[in-house]
Amino acid sequence: MTEKAPSSYKKLMEKVKDLLTLQSAISIIHWDMETMMPPKAITLRSQQLALLSRIEHRMSTDPEIGKLLEEIMRPSEYEKLDAVQKRNVYLIKKQYDEQTKLPEELVAEIAKQQAITVDVWKKAKAAQNFAMFKPELEKLVELEKKAAEILMKVKETATPYDALIDIFEPKMTAKTITKVFNELREGLVSLLKKCENAPKQPDASILKRKVPIDVQRKIAKALAEVVGYDIESREAGGRIDETEHPFTTGYYDDVRITTHYYEDNFASSIFSVLHEAGHALYEQNLKKEWMFQRVGTGCSSGFHESQSRFVENIIGRSREFWVYFLPKLKKITGTLLSDVNLDAFVHAVNQVKPSKIRVEADEVTYGLHIIVRFNMERDLFADKIIVKELPEIWNQSYKEYLGIKIENDSEGVMQDTHWASGLYGYFPSYALGNIYSGQILAAMEKDLKNWKEQIAKGNIKAIKEWLVKNVHAYGNLYNPEELIRKITGKGLTVKPYLNYLNEKYSELYGF
Amino acid sequence: MTEKAPSSYKKLMEKVKDLLTLQSAISIIHWDMETMMPPKAITLRSQQLALLSRIEHRMSTDPEIGKLLEEIMRPSEYEKLDAVQKRNVYLIKKQYDEQTKLPEELVAEIAKQQAITVDVWKKAKAAQNFAMFKPELEKLVELEKKAAEILMKVKETATPYDALIDIFEPKMTAKTITKVFNELREGLVSLLKKCENAPKQPDASILKRKVPIDVQRKIAKALAEVVGYDIESREAGGRIDETEHPFTTGYYDDVRITTHYYEDNFASSIFSVLHEAGHALYEQNLKKEWMFQRVGTGCSSGFHESQSRFVENIIGRSREFWVYFLPKLKKITGTLLSDVNLDAFVHAVNQVKPSKIRVEADEVTYGLHIIVRFNMERDLFADKIIVKELPEIWNQSYKEYLGIKIENDSEGVMQDTHWASGLYGYFPSYALGNIYSGQILAAMEKDLKNWKEQIAKGNIKAIKEWLVKNVHAYGNLYNPEELIRKITGKGLTVKPYLNYLNEKYSELYGF
Repeated sequence: MTEKAPSSYKKLMEKVKDLLTLQSAISIIHWDMETMMPPKAITLRSQQLALLSRIEHRMSTDPEIGKLLEEIMRPSEYEKLDAVQKRNVYLIKKQYDEQTKLPEELVAEIAKQQAITVDVWKKAKAAQNFAMFKPELEKLVELEKKAAEILMKVKETATPYDALIDIFEPKMTAKTITKVFNELREGLVSLLKKCENAPKQPDASILKRKVPIDVQRKIAKALAEVVGYDIESREAGGRIDETEHPFTTGYYDDVRITTHYYEDNFASSIFSVLHEAGHALYEQNLKKEWMFQRVGTGCSSGFHESQSRFVENIIGRSREFWVYFLPKLKKITGTLLSDVNLDAFVHAVNQVKPSKIRVEADEVTYGLHIIVRFNMERDLFADKIIVKELPEIWNQSYKEYLGIKIENDSEGVMQDTHWASGLYGYFPSYALGNIYSGQILAAMEKDLKNWKEQIAKGNIKAIKEWLVKNVHAYGNLYNPEELIRKITGKGLTVKPYLNYLNEKYSELYGF
Repeated sequence: MTEKAPSSYKKLMEKVKDLLTLQSAISIIHWDMETMMPPKAITLRSQQLALLSRIEHRMSTDPEIGKLLEEIMRPSEYEKLDAVQKRNVYLIKKQYDEQTKLPEELVAEIAKQQAITVDVWKKAKAAQNFAMFKPELEKLVELEKKAAEILMKVKETATPYDALIDIFEPKMTAKTITKVFNELREGLVSLLKKCENAPKQPDASILKRKVPIDVQRKIAKALAEVVGYDIESREAGGRIDETEHPFTTGYYDDVRITTHYYEDNFASSIFSVLHEAGHALYEQNLKKEWMFQRVGTGCSSGFHESQSRFVENIIGRSREFWVYFLPKLKKITGTLLSDVNLDAFVHAVNQVKPSKIRVEADEVTYGLHIIVRFNMERDLFADKIIVKELPEIWNQSYKEYLGIKIENDSEGVMQDTHWASGLYGYFPSYALGNIYSGQILAAMEKDLKNWKEQIAKGNIKAIKEWLVKNVHAYGNLYNPEELIRKITGKGLTVKPYLNYLNEKYSELYGF
């Protein structure tokens, strides 16, 4: 912090430091719940988390923050701040407004309804019964709409849904997303058809070979080492544990990932480890001097996803990666995979095949799963469709976009937890992440012309350093649209991502 | 909570619930630091713990608690409380006074000096240099004396040192302890001589056989199951992890223990697991309806130690335990211990041998280590001795009590962390725990005459249930002196413990 920063700024930053420190502690408690906690402790744990969340809420809505913001935003004070400090103030104010402008009763009502809806969703999904889920989902959507309308006024967005998108992808709008997603959809559908009709087709049976969990743990360790996610040294800031659904959590020097090992699907943990390591590298390589500041976080959910996809797909599913890693994989797995051919393996892990389930989708079809969800969310919050219609629209969209027939709503509209959990406006981030990753790749190629050769040698370091310098180090200094422009010289555009896909899959499928 | 409890009581209990919930969350963060945390995270972790401790301090010294205590203690209100509620109010007031009557600057100064002293202690211990440690220890002792004098007035104890003892062993006094420790010392020294001169001597070489760590982990699991510390079922409320120094932490449904595995000392983890499981069973079996109340904790440090020693020594080092468990141990360890003879093994794990290091001491000499420390603490806080004299007094006492010559202060006066950490008044609890365990055993023998046969059958359940009913279930409803009277019909007395030792060791050593 510069010497000349006004004392109101310094006080504000102390408050933010406490809040971020508390949040980092809460993330450990969450992580423990998912990984280590004895099962009997679940009720106690929910009480601990409820208390910590009350304390967090009290800290983040402390009226003192409002006063300090007023002070610091007086022109005479504000002009003393440098660009980073101004960004901090902007981000603090944004979050303070979001947290304080929603009536407390509404926040409480939403929290309660979310818990109910998630609970019913689990049961309804197990029972393949959307009718059971519907009334609670309707209540939740109504409450979320109320909140979105208030947030729309606070954030001055064009629509309520834009106010929700803004939580995850600041300043992004449904209008812009619709435009780029239409282009993305066209490109993906066309590419999908080419793959389906291509002469070369992959044989994915190799991926069904049983690999013992213990061996898969060794593979995960080796992958972490290759991509520079340190979990073993005396300076390690990470670790890999096991959960039903993989995730990344933590802050700067303590960023942990999880994976799930399936004995008959060893590729699942390989790519989930790479994916989560991509998230983790982003968090670990934020500027050290921004720790405990608002700028010291990732730019957006979409940008976070761009980093996980970059490591998982652009690096991890490249032919060059397996030139380097397949011999290692064979060594770790003993005789299990000794007969595997490089090209056959690379094609297998890049198999394009329309499927019902988003989290199992390949690179080409994944975007289509997201576009279905985005269109529905957008129309739902614009009152163009209602909750009752969701299953039908879902099933129609899957038929139209992916040529897939959904047999029941558990593998259809009820497959994801997002809507039950009140995460509206989040889905587009996944596809935006892919689009950003394509743009970032195009920019990187200009600086690192031999990046593929480097990967083939196992030298991911140069790529990682490029990402740190050109993406991670910016933290949350810019909104996503500004950041992608900073990195690539252009605004959001689908072309580089589609180019990347077309080049890669035409080679794989021989069209 | 009864319907008729005054609203001030209910409000007070809400505050206590928050505080205990927060403390239970903090214990998870501590546990994670010792077991799971990536090494790089240490600075961030100390910041998280400092913040949580500030929040905890603010909650526990909230003036609202003082007001509610005043309200509830008005006779018209107080008489509406039942015995448990009165005890809660008493315990809340006691802690509130302890927390609020010490000046904040003194508390901060002590915390700072503790950190410095621990740091210097580590270096001085490594360098075998007491002179290096002395100046910081002197500062800490001076500060602790100041605090003890203030606490003496608040608690109305006879001496400052009694006010410190009271933190760990409520209402216990140095005078009482001196009396029972003198008797204990006499008994132990006499027993030690008998063992040393006995015809039958153990051969402990069997305990040096190498047992792989993985195998020791299996032994630990089996021991947990035998004593009823559930770490594996879907209802499990515990777990075993690995740390440098074993400990137990947690609350009710989430109580975790740790151990340390040494390849060339498998007995070490066996008895540390039993010891910590004894602590854990106490925490897990407190009355469920007292969760989040002050009465819902262990009675005192000494009582906690009585439970760990009961499981470790009275059960775990009994011949009958090994009648049951040695065949299991042989099965788990394959051929490693197949030739081991029951009586030789039991004698080996009960070898009596004076040693320099407290934590490695056997049942007979352990108390002598404690008495040395207690006498020194007592005299230090009574200004009868000064810090400079500690090494000499230590070495003399070890010679006199244990017949041991201390070569350097690192294996002498600097061996334990307690004095560097400001834990004065804690040491006596260890020996009081042993004394209580003897009294508890004598009481149990009246109800469970065949307890040894039960153990030999591996049926620890009956003993556990007796302990739950007669010790654990009382929680913190009584002070230790009252509780031991409640359980045994008598106040604190050394005899049953000495009887237990004499009977056991005369048989083992054949005198």
